[in-house]
Amino acid sequence: MGVAATLPLAKPIPASDAAPVPDALSALADMLRDDLEAANRAIVARMDSPVALIPQLAAHIVAAGGKRLRPLLTLGAARLCGYGQSGGPAATRPLRHVNLAACVEFIHTATLLHDDVVDESLLRRGLASANAIFGNKASVLVGDFLFARAFQMMVEDGSLRVLEILSHAAATIAEGEVLQLVIQNDLGTGEAQYLDVIKGKTAALFVAACQVGAVVADRPEAEERGLAEYGMNLGIAFQLVDDALDYAADQATLGKTVGDDFREGKITLPVLHAFHAGDAEEQAFWRRTVGTLDQADADLGLAMRLMERHGAIAATLARAADFAAAAKRALAVFPATPMRAAMLAVADYTVSRAR
Amino acid sequence: MGVAATLPLAKPIPASDAAPVPDALSALADMLRDDLEAANRAIVARMDSPVALIPQLAAHIVAAGGKRLRPLLTLGAARLCGYGQSGGPAATRPLRHVNLAACVEFIHTATLLHDDVVDESLLRRGLASANAIFGNKASVLVGDFLFARAFQMMVEDGSLRVLEILSHAAATIAEGEVLQLVIQNDLGTGEAQYLDVIKGKTAALFVAACQVGAVVADRPEAEERGLAEYGMNLGIAFQLVDDALDYAADQATLGKTVGDDFREGKITLPVLHAFHAGDAEEQAFWRRTVGTLDQADADLGLAMRLMERHGAIAATLARAADFAAAAKRALAVFPATPMRAAMLAVADYTVSRAR
Repeated sequence: MGVAATLPLAKPIPASDAAPVPDALSALADMLRDDLEAANRAIVARMDSPVALIPQLAAHIVAAGGKRLRPLLTLGAARLCGYGQSGGPAATRPLRHVNLAACVEFIHTATLLHDDVVDESLLRRGLASANAIFGNKASVLVGDFLFARAFQMMVEDGSLRVLEILSHAAATIAEGEVLQLVIQNDLGTGEAQYLDVIKGKTAALFVAACQVGAVVADRPEAEERGLAEYGMNLGIAFQLVDDALDYAADQATLGKTVGDDFREGKITLPVLHAFHAGDAEEQAFWRRTVGTLDQADADLGLAMRLMERHGAIAATLARAADFAAAAKRALAVFPATPMRAAMLAVADYTVSRAR
Repeated sequence: MGVAATLPLAKPIPASDAAPVPDALSALADMLRDDLEAANRAIVARMDSPVALIPQLAAHIVAAGGKRLRPLLTLGAARLCGYGQSGGPAATRPLRHVNLAACVEFIHTATLLHDDVVDESLLRRGLASANAIFGNKASVLVGDFLFARAFQMMVEDGSLRVLEILSHAAATIAEGEVLQLVIQNDLGTGEAQYLDVIKGKTAALFVAACQVGAVVADRPEAEERGLAEYGMNLGIAFQLVDDALDYAADQATLGKTVGDDFREGKITLPVLHAFHAGDAEEQAFWRRTVGTLDQADADLGLAMRLMERHGAIAATLARAADFAAAAKRALAVFPATPMRAAMLAVADYTVSRAR
């Protein structure tokens, strides 16, 4: 019954409670290589359609070299819960976690495609994004297809509990995104409301991705709760870092553009921090640029200097570190295994990618 | 066990095989009044969210006085299959068909909201629609919420078969919509491909709406198949008539604008008919206006006159009548009851609304 020889769980990586592993996500992906490759195959196979534009456009996003963070959470959570450890020949190994990891990636891709949809006001400001290649409408419709396809795959999986978790996540994501739209440009937004936004738009899918791993392994509720808490805190930390990186000058290496949030007038924690710490003149600057989108070329640079002056980025990253630590504590319910260490390291990675 | 006294099934309406009932949809709604009111209550209750913009925007579409055709199909199909005929006090009467009718309406509303999303090219042509009030992005995200909420309600219903039917329909709708986008402006489109589009974007939800009615009633497969066939043919007929009405001059009374399809360069059967029947000069006209969207003010009027000349509208409506007749034949599997007569009358209504 020994499974270590056939499943890629044996390679130990250092426990990560102290120093973060430089690229913990690659390490987790290495441990889960067979599962991840199977998930990638499922993703490519199931995004197919007789309507050729669908796989073409989906591939543009899905195959764009994403980190596969969310499907890795599903795969890792399932393995952490001991799913599939009955071993046996590869052909008969259970693959529910692989198919659900693909579902999670499809839902994530659908939200990315729908997030690409821009409004007329932003189009006028020259902010067309990936959807510029295919158009708003194609992005929306292919997103709809991937979303529907994810539900078809969950139905094939056959667990109403999984369907409940992921349909709840999908509704919560949409609520978070709408709330983000509502508070856009509103510097009166409170920190609690900002946290509601990122819990919805980002953390909800992290929660669900982890939870379904526990569900397929049929584990006690305490483990599902622990993984849900891990996902929630990890997701919040992840988005806080993302929001900080949008104002971090030296991110060219990360392949991210700086200033997107600023140009859209998105209300994020760094902005709220700098706004509240600023004097009257600075607050007038934020009201003009983020509040009314009246921006000149030099404004992003000034925004970043104001953030530096008030430690807005450092404060945001400190909050992220708190949430990452909470994520790690939530895994205490599991015994110390290489897989747990790898999941802990992912929490550190989430924060360390900003340094 | 007599149920006629407590359920609104007793009011007979004329059998409709010969002359269409003037407003068959109202007649069906009358027969299903209690069910429809319950479905409307479920729709309002379940589109609620702490994010106030969601019910606000959803109400703009859902409460805009739609005909509720699709939920009526679910309710009617369930009753046709004898669902809920065990009677008893109102509080204990089964309401699965009511909740699923609300799901069907949510999915329909989500597709309407996503259909409102326009591309930059159309925005430049001044073609912003209902979404102009709230913006592209809000339309997309609220549509996503309603779609997710529909799946949450299906999970509460608990039938994997229902989830299978409606997730398949959702994927098929998206495929139909993407195909429509692909063939836009392409006068080389064949009639078969056009039929694929409307089977997907319109008929798929008619099919599913009818099918789930049979599923909740737990009826033999022949009845589910009959209802699916009814829905498919009814949906095709419905869309053919819609496509004809877009070029029918006297539609002010229907509250529809004329010429939307023309201005978008949508490929529909009336266009294909007029294009293929036209001489070289006429074909050049269609290539310029629908093919490249190079349109002047007088072009819609000329398009309509060309359709008149070649009987394009009449030919489209004749095709619709054929499909409506096929829809009616598909209900032969059911005994002749007032409910069947009402469903037959809906098929006639679908075509007669164009006259």
